[in-house]
Parts: sequence; structure tokens; C-alpha cells
Amino acid sequence: MNEMDEVITLDYGSGGKKTSELIEKLIVPKMNCEALSQLGDAAVIGDLVFSTDSFVVSPRFFPGGNIGKLAVCGTVNDISVAGGKPEYLSLSYIIEEGLPSEELERITASVAETAEACGVSIVTGDTKVVERGRGDGIYINTAGIGRLITPGLGRDKLREGDIILISGTVGDHGTAVMLAREPGLLGAPILSDCAPLNRLTGALSALGSSMRVMRDPTRGGLATTLNEFIEPSPSAQAVFGMELDERSIPVNASVQSACDILGLDPLYCACEGRAIAVVAPEAADEALAIMKSFDKNAAVIGRVTAEHPGRLTIKTRLGGSRIAAKLTGAQLPRIC
Amino acid sequence: MNEMDEVITLDYGSGGKKTSELIEKLIVPKMNCEALSQLGDAAVIGDLVFSTDSFVVSPRFFPGGNIGKLAVCGTVNDISVAGGKPEYLSLSYIIEEGLPSEELERITASVAETAEACGVSIVTGDTKVVERGRGDGIYINTAGIGRLITPGLGRDKLREGDIILISGTVGDHGTAVMLAREPGLLGAPILSDCAPLNRLTGALSALGSSMRVMRDPTRGGLATTLNEFIEPSPSAQAVFGMELDERSIPVNASVQSACDILGLDPLYCACEGRAIAVVAPEAADEALAIMKSFDKNAAVIGRVTAEHPGRLTIKTRLGGSRIAAKLTGAQLPRIC
Repeated sequence: MNEMDEVITLDYGSGGKKTSELIEKLIVPKMNCEALSQLGDAAVIGDLVFSTDSFVVSPRFFPGGNIGKLAVCGTVNDISVAGGKPEYLSLSYIIEEGLPSEELERITASVAETAEACGVSIVTGDTKVVERGRGDGIYINTAGIGRLITPGLGRDKLREGDIILISGTVGDHGTAVMLAREPGLLGAPILSDCAPLNRLTGALSALGSSMRVMRDPTRGGLATTLNEFIEPSPSAQAVFGMELDERSIPVNASVQSACDILGLDPLYCACEGRAIAVVAPEAADEALAIMKSFDKNAAVIGRVTAEHPGRLTIKTRLGGSRIAAKLTGAQLPRIC
Repeated sequence: MNEMDEVITLDYGSGGKKTSELIEKLIVPKMNCEALSQLGDAAVIGDLVFSTDSFVVSPRFFPGGNIGKLAVCGTVNDISVAGGKPEYLSLSYIIEEGLPSEELERITASVAETAEACGVSIVTGDTKVVERGRGDGIYINTAGIGRLITPGLGRDKLREGDIILISGTVGDHGTAVMLAREPGLLGAPILSDCAPLNRLTGALSALGSSMRVMRDPTRGGLATTLNEFIEPSPSAQAVFGMELDERSIPVNASVQSACDILGLDPLYCACEGRAIAVVAPEAADEALAIMKSFDKNAAVIGRVTAEHPGRLTIKTRLGGSRIAAKLTGAQLPRIC
């Protein structure tokens, strides 16, 4: 790992390599905490699951959602894929002076609606206001507490032959936000997939220990998240690789066209309402059936291999294969 | 209560009247949550205490602390005065592009040191980066979970004759930050009182139900916080008043001089390491002895009265009396 740059650049917020570098080199070593050094999106403490995220998405309103809906879904989803049933959220606003009250009201209504839809309660909060030019309308932090319902998840549970599933199409959120910044670039808007995952992961808890690990592929997208499952950790060598079949990865046609035009790869575009699950081979049919009962686009997309430890290989549509590394630099900043 | 302004102004972040208006009119009614509508600085859920705060202090480094130390103390203290023993924190950074890595490193070291000193673990986190001009170096959110050790605290427990104590001098933090913005304005710098309160409140838990309510007087200071104990709530009339003896309120001489020059009132300046406690009369001596074992400046400063419900009255040094209402407008924005 290289030395850090002298100043923090946008690349450090990409969710890819630079973000990992910042977290693993500058933050985690100082904290001396086992739960934190797991580098999951949530901490499991006894029977509690605890997670936090700050949301800085630009624009604040996009087709399929807004920063308020996203702030609830983001933390609900981090708790859900860590094996928790989310129950309580905190809500903290950093508002830039000049934000129209009416906009704050719409965002807050969205927070409330989404929390109710998820069955979680907003129980505590905070509000700060910063001067004009020191923010961007509003930033929102949520933290959340859940009860552990699927214990024992983790990348250390992976075994050769395990099956990789995705709960729906990939890349919708990232592409939707990108296009929302350039209205008129394409015809029909693309809808973000922003949605809560807690009911899906609640249903998947029936799989018990056949469920190895789950994660929601947000910043950095599907390819970056899968790399996090197999890359060497600070304390261990890489043991497994992963192989995906590109033809089986569900991508909306409109998202694929937009990505083609914009020069993006949907496998690196953020999702905000999709779960990746890696399950034991004998549980793959049941996992897929449960996922399909929520979204017909759910699919088996690949498997865990003993070959090429640390590498994500994609069998392309044309029969070749390519290596998909972790995202380097910022494909698109301020996505969530 | 008046209609809200069309846009959010800095006054809404003061911690005073406008902040209450924003929270009580725009946020809480949408959430339909009993815990949230208590409007405490933390939520008590069964035997858990849950709290959050975002920190936007400017400047990021000030005599006696920095934004990292403040971010840990702030949430530790909110949990502590709600009757909890803080155990786990989340840590979320919103970094402005261009922040020197060395500064981020110092802030993070401060977070780690303060957490260790408090006996809490940072177990989960998040990092975002926003473009230059969309932040101010760094904003930090912490959320925290504690175990309830002093149950049953609340303003509804107040009784006529209850005694009001403060755990040390007031106004140090607010004045320190104000002067840090104007280096050279006065001679020696004033040190912020930024410090964790969890060991003090842990010791005070020995008082059991003689402890009525605690709070740390941050934004809006001592006078605003005491007003929050006695003002009418959305669901109830005011029942009690409070009377303070100005001569008994501990204020550092350097803080008083700085406030005199700056035209500030130390009773409205933020503290970040002080606890207000209201206790039954028979427990006042014990409470004071415990407080003094932590800080010799701790003092009994007043009492709960049946007269003048909803009003905080201050008996002045000159023998007169004045009413101290809640802070209106922003005495000093970006204090925490």
C-alpha cells in the first residue's frame, strides 16, 4: 500500500482503493478495536448490530428517491446485510444556511415515510446549521441499532463452490444520480433502486449457517464489493477467488445504454437497494427462490473458486474472461 | 410559536428558540415516536441509551481540544447525562477535498485517545469526501450506545425545592472557541472545558431516584438548558420555575472578562464538559461532594420553585433579579 497523499482528494471518497487506504491506514490502526478492524459495514456486538453512514448525495432529489429516503435505506441496509433486524435510527442534519424550509420539510417527510415502511423508529437526532458555502444544502447522518437474527456471517465463512447471488439489477442508483446531474442528456429518466432490504434479509435468515456473507454493493458497485470479500486482509492472505458469468448479471437495458454512452461500467455503479448473498451450494435454490419472491430479476451470478485467490474473474458475453479489480479513483463522487 | 422562515438561517442552529422551533415543528411531528418527542439529548430504549451529534465546530483546533475530542465527548456526555454508561461509538467523517492528511491524522488520534480515556470503543464508521467549497475541512458525526445505569431521569421528576447543581465553571468552551477565531484579541488563551462526563455521572448514579434530571449545557449554555427543563412542553403546561443565585454560579475570571469585552453572557455560552444536575433537597450535600471530588468548582446554584412556572429567575450580584429566557438567535454559530 502506498503512502497517503498530502491532502485528501475526492478519490478517497470513491468507496474503492483510496477509501480503503484511508480507513485501513489512517483510521483503524489508531482505534485498537476488533469489531472495527473487521471492516464490515456494521459492527456486531453481542446480539446488537450497530452501523452509521453519512449521506452527501448530489443532487438531493433524484428519480426514485432523495437524500432523506437514501439516509434511512442506507443504514437499514447496512444493518440488514450484517445479519441484523434494524429497529432504531438516529437522524442528524447538517444544513447549509439558505436551504428552503419547504425542501427540508419534503426531505423530512421522506425520512419519516421510509422509516415507517421499514418498521424502524427514529428515536434521537441532532440539527446543525453551517454558513452559506460551507455545505451543500443538507448532509444527513443516520446511525442504527438492530437485533442480530443471522449470526456468524463473514468473509471467513466462504468455501470453494459457494454460490453468489444478487437480489436485482445492478447499477441503477449510480446511473440515476449521474443522469440527474445532466437532465436532458437521455430520454426517459432512470430510477434509482434505493429501497430497504430488511424484509428480504429477514426472509433469508431462514437459511441459517448456509448463508456465508451478505453485503449491499453501494459505492464502488458489485465488482468492488465482491473484491472486498476475497482481497487479502490486513491480517491474512487471500484464500479464494470469485468467478462471475457476465450474461447472468441482471442489468436494466436502459442502465446499460446509459453506461455505454457515459463510458461507465454498471458493475462499478452503486446500488442502494440490492443485496449480494454468498450461500452454500445446497442452499442456492432456496436463496434464489426467496430473492425472486421479492424481485424477479434476482439471479445466481457466480461462484467462489480456489483458483486465483484474491481475484474476481468475469466470463464475458463473448466467451473470454477479464479480471475486475477494485474501483480505483472516483468513478462518480457524491453518489450516496 | 411562529411560522418557520422560508429558508433555514444560522439562527436555526443556535441551540435556542429557533432550533427548538425547527425540531418541534418540522421534524418531530412527522416521526410519530414517543422517545423522540421527549426531546432529550438521548433516547432511552429499554436498558439501552442511544444518542447522536454532528460536530461542525470552527476552528477545528482550539485551546483545550479539537473537533475530534469534541465529537467523542459530545456523544459520551449526552449518553451520560441521560443516565447511561456509554460503551460503543460510531464515527463518521464528511471531509472537504483538500484537508491536509496530517490534520486528519491528528484529529483521528484525538478521537482515539479520547475514546480510550472514556473507556468506549469506536466500533463502526463511515467516510465521505465532498468537493472543495462544499464543506469546511471536516464535519464529524458520532452516535453512541450506552447501558442505562440511572433509570427514571426526566423533567417530569422535578419537585418544588429540588436543588440545582453545576459540576464546574460555565462558559469556558464557548468563549475559548470565540477567542480562537480572533487570535490576538486577548492575552492568554482561554481553555475549553471539553471533557468526558461519564465517570462523574457514573459516580452520581449512587443517588438513585434522588437524581431528578441531568443535562450538559452545550449550545445555548446554562440558561437555555435550564429553560428546557421548565418551559411548557408540546403536551403540558409549565409547572415549575427555577431560581439561580448569580453569585454562586462559578465563572472563570478570564472567561468573565472576555465575555465583558465581547458583550457575551457566560450563562449563554456553551460548555462541553459540565453537567447540570437537579436533585432532591436531601441528596444535595452528597451530590455536591461527589461533584467536588471531580472538580472543586462544582456548586449548588439554585432551586426549583412553584412560583413563576416556566420562568428562570436570576438573583443578581446587586440584589435585584432578572428573567433569563431561552437564547434567541445565534449567539455564536458553529460552536460544536
